[in-house]
Amino acid sequence: MTRQIPLNSEIPSLEYAQIFTASSILFDTGKGQDIATFDVTIREMPGKKNFMLLGGIEELVQTILTWSYDKAFIDYLFEEKLISKTFAHYLKTIHFKGDVLAMPEGTVCFPGEPVIRITTSLCDANLLTAFLINVICYPTLFLSKAVRVRIASNGKPYFFAGAMRTFGFENVLKIQRYSYMLGSAINVPYASYLYGVGKRKPSIGFYHALIKSFPTEQEAYEHFLPWTKGFGLTTSMVDTYDVKKGIQSWIKVEKAARLRGESLGGVSIDSGDVFALSKFLRQTLDGADLQDTPIVAYSNLDEFKIAELEKRGADINVYCAFTETTSVSDRPVLEAVYKLAVIQDSDGKTHYTAKLTPGKTSLPGMKQVFRINNPDGTFKEDVIGLETESLSQPLLVAYIKNGKQVTQLPTLDDIKTYIDTQLDGLSSQLKEITTVHQYPLKVSDTINNILDTLKKAH
Amino acid sequence: MTRQIPLNSEIPSLEYAQIFTASSILFDTGKGQDIATFDVTIREMPGKKNFMLLGGIEELVQTILTWSYDKAFIDYLFEEKLISKTFAHYLKTIHFKGDVLAMPEGTVCFPGEPVIRITTSLCDANLLTAFLINVICYPTLFLSKAVRVRIASNGKPYFFAGAMRTFGFENVLKIQRYSYMLGSAINVPYASYLYGVGKRKPSIGFYHALIKSFPTEQEAYEHFLPWTKGFGLTTSMVDTYDVKKGIQSWIKVEKAARLRGESLGGVSIDSGDVFALSKFLRQTLDGADLQDTPIVAYSNLDEFKIAELEKRGADINVYCAFTETTSVSDRPVLEAVYKLAVIQDSDGKTHYTAKLTPGKTSLPGMKQVFRINNPDGTFKEDVIGLETESLSQPLLVAYIKNGKQVTQLPTLDDIKTYIDTQLDGLSSQLKEITTVHQYPLKVSDTINNILDTLKKAH
Repeated sequence: MTRQIPLNSEIPSLEYAQIFTASSILFDTGKGQDIATFDVTIREMPGKKNFMLLGGIEELVQTILTWSYDKAFIDYLFEEKLISKTFAHYLKTIHFKGDVLAMPEGTVCFPGEPVIRITTSLCDANLLTAFLINVICYPTLFLSKAVRVRIASNGKPYFFAGAMRTFGFENVLKIQRYSYMLGSAINVPYASYLYGVGKRKPSIGFYHALIKSFPTEQEAYEHFLPWTKGFGLTTSMVDTYDVKKGIQSWIKVEKAARLRGESLGGVSIDSGDVFALSKFLRQTLDGADLQDTPIVAYSNLDEFKIAELEKRGADINVYCAFTETTSVSDRPVLEAVYKLAVIQDSDGKTHYTAKLTPGKTSLPGMKQVFRINNPDGTFKEDVIGLETESLSQPLLVAYIKNGKQVTQLPTLDDIKTYIDTQLDGLSSQLKEITTVHQYPLKVSDTINNILDTLKKAH
Repeated sequence: MTRQIPLNSEIPSLEYAQIFTASSILFDTGKGQDIATFDVTIREMPGKKNFMLLGGIEELVQTILTWSYDKAFIDYLFEEKLISKTFAHYLKTIHFKGDVLAMPEGTVCFPGEPVIRITTSLCDANLLTAFLINVICYPTLFLSKAVRVRIASNGKPYFFAGAMRTFGFENVLKIQRYSYMLGSAINVPYASYLYGVGKRKPSIGFYHALIKSFPTEQEAYEHFLPWTKGFGLTTSMVDTYDVKKGIQSWIKVEKAARLRGESLGGVSIDSGDVFALSKFLRQTLDGADLQDTPIVAYSNLDEFKIAELEKRGADINVYCAFTETTSVSDRPVLEAVYKLAVIQDSDGKTHYTAKLTPGKTSLPGMKQVFRINNPDGTFKEDVIGLETESLSQPLLVAYIKNGKQVTQLPTLDDIKTYIDTQLDGLSSQLKEITTVHQYPLKVSDTINNILDTLKKAH
């Protein structure tokens, strides 16, 4: 069987050829033993958004702590003349010896901020190039999109833990984890089984194909009834054939069920004019004295469509936005970059470095991001300063020091709570879905002075 | 260590809760033992494209042949009341007993065509819902985007085997495999190591961060020289500081190297006005009698930008399009659907089914896709007919019959050759990058007659 999904232990091996060769060159010249500090920064906002939520930090820390290569693969790199013999020897016992700081999983972050900072030998830091970018890429894109669905849903329940049309199977698991952190139920029970969270809370939907396998809609709904107990949300599609007849069959079964203290749950809309259908269903259900029956909308929703439906006052109680959210369809590119910021040479001399290309500037120094709050607790502005400056609450947390884990990773429930508090910090402007606002991000005078010196020397 | 990447054996477990419950309901009512035929169809073209290339078929066949669930997970599903006890018992020894047909990996395909057809018990077929959609999703999106980069590159070498900013680590491996099939070099040696293809052919680029770690550009280039031998393409960035000085340093090292029969390879452009820089570099290199030095362009290219550069006559010899290609940035959504087409009940009676919702129609019957060629061998039109009609060359190949593999899977090199012949079949219109053309897709009279009967009965 050909394996197309890597094992956890293989993640660091998934690097460009040129990265291995570059580290070999650096190692062999001795330059690779200099101590380097690199930043991972997201250069642009992915799409028209006001903020991002950072993901991937647990996998970052766990992968770095267990970093190694298959010995046969190292031999292969040497045989292919991608690395030198001495470097091959070095790689066989490699382990991470430096420091890793990162914003905690779920932190609200902005373009231009270092979200991960790593200090280790130049040669080792270089070997982690693709890894450090990939590890945050999809999780951050998904979280930053899905959180907007949550906000657009206006306090109503929302689901975006899609399992279909995902970018690979790895992302089915990741989407479930991140959806749980964002307060959407886990829909894939294997994720609950694996992570031990979200038990008995999946949403169960009775869908067209299943309904069609019964002679009538009414018989279908009657068969579903015993299965609805104890779930977070159970819904039935009522538009399999003709929504006007479908809702009547559903109401008939539901009314009979309620007499026995049971319920089918809610009804769902999967296609057509979602707004008009929501009005029709609400009116019909209310007419049958089923004011508390929730109406659930699917139909390729995203945060923009949900915001519009809310604005128009659609009678929708629960929003589902699967495919467009998991595909991050408005802008699926995270312009994450990995840039050298400081280097300490073998004489112990510190050299600041920065990229000076206009539009692609990177900042020098061993940096920290400080968040300054308004008196009401909302975020006022972020300042990028040197770590030694103490400007306010620092966002980068040290997870690994001298190769050892120094901060425990939060549980999924911890992260869920943390995200709630992060979202409480957003101003109403930043929570807007259709209007773009620029959050103030400043650079400390100290860093600007270093940058000026570098520009003059250039 | 928390595992966020599933094992191959876990893929079928990554299903929605409702799918397990639906199969349990179907199983328990006896209806699940009916023999169903489902199609996977891509409903819409992902973005402004003229055709798609199908991916994911090897993983499809291999996963179905090894289909099983962890027994503890089945117990979990039962404890969570997602499935019945009898169904839990059934799941513990499940294996695939039916037929799977699919278009071979790399087949040119179009929206509305069944690309996978599966016949098995209704209950089993339902359990594969998310899997059958996910397995083709990213591979088809990536192949269908990357092939356009190849076409836009106008016969010049192209690279899109990105390893950074990918949607997860699984897709690093998948991108490498699919890039190899499309004729782009593998850039991640771990993929060559794992799959045994593309050895000694990675492209090695000497990049800004590496160049900066030497006191001068000239010293950097001199250090790279011993590493350039035997690679498919080695390039150096010449715009680390000032491209006018950078290219002179590069030329100095290159001229000296050539006297010894060596060469640095090519020079690359990573930012700025790619067109103008290509002209400047070509002129400068030609002036130094280096007419054969290739110029390689990066800088967030995609097929649209490449087509434009080619139209303007840019002096670019090799195109690299990584991030926008791997992110499928113009439209990252594959509207793949899985629809019931025929069902044979316990009395042996055949029931055709179809979805009749306007815009979401699905076709009834056990279907085949027939491709009709022009006299010059290019594709003229496709016809969807019943399998029993013999209208022309059939595209769906039987990989599994009665649970047994009946067709060997092609090697990566077989697929590479197959894709070349598939692309030879494209008319010049279908190969256009900026203009959308509709390829003729017809439905046979037999199927239209069945559809009419179903519509009348509806």
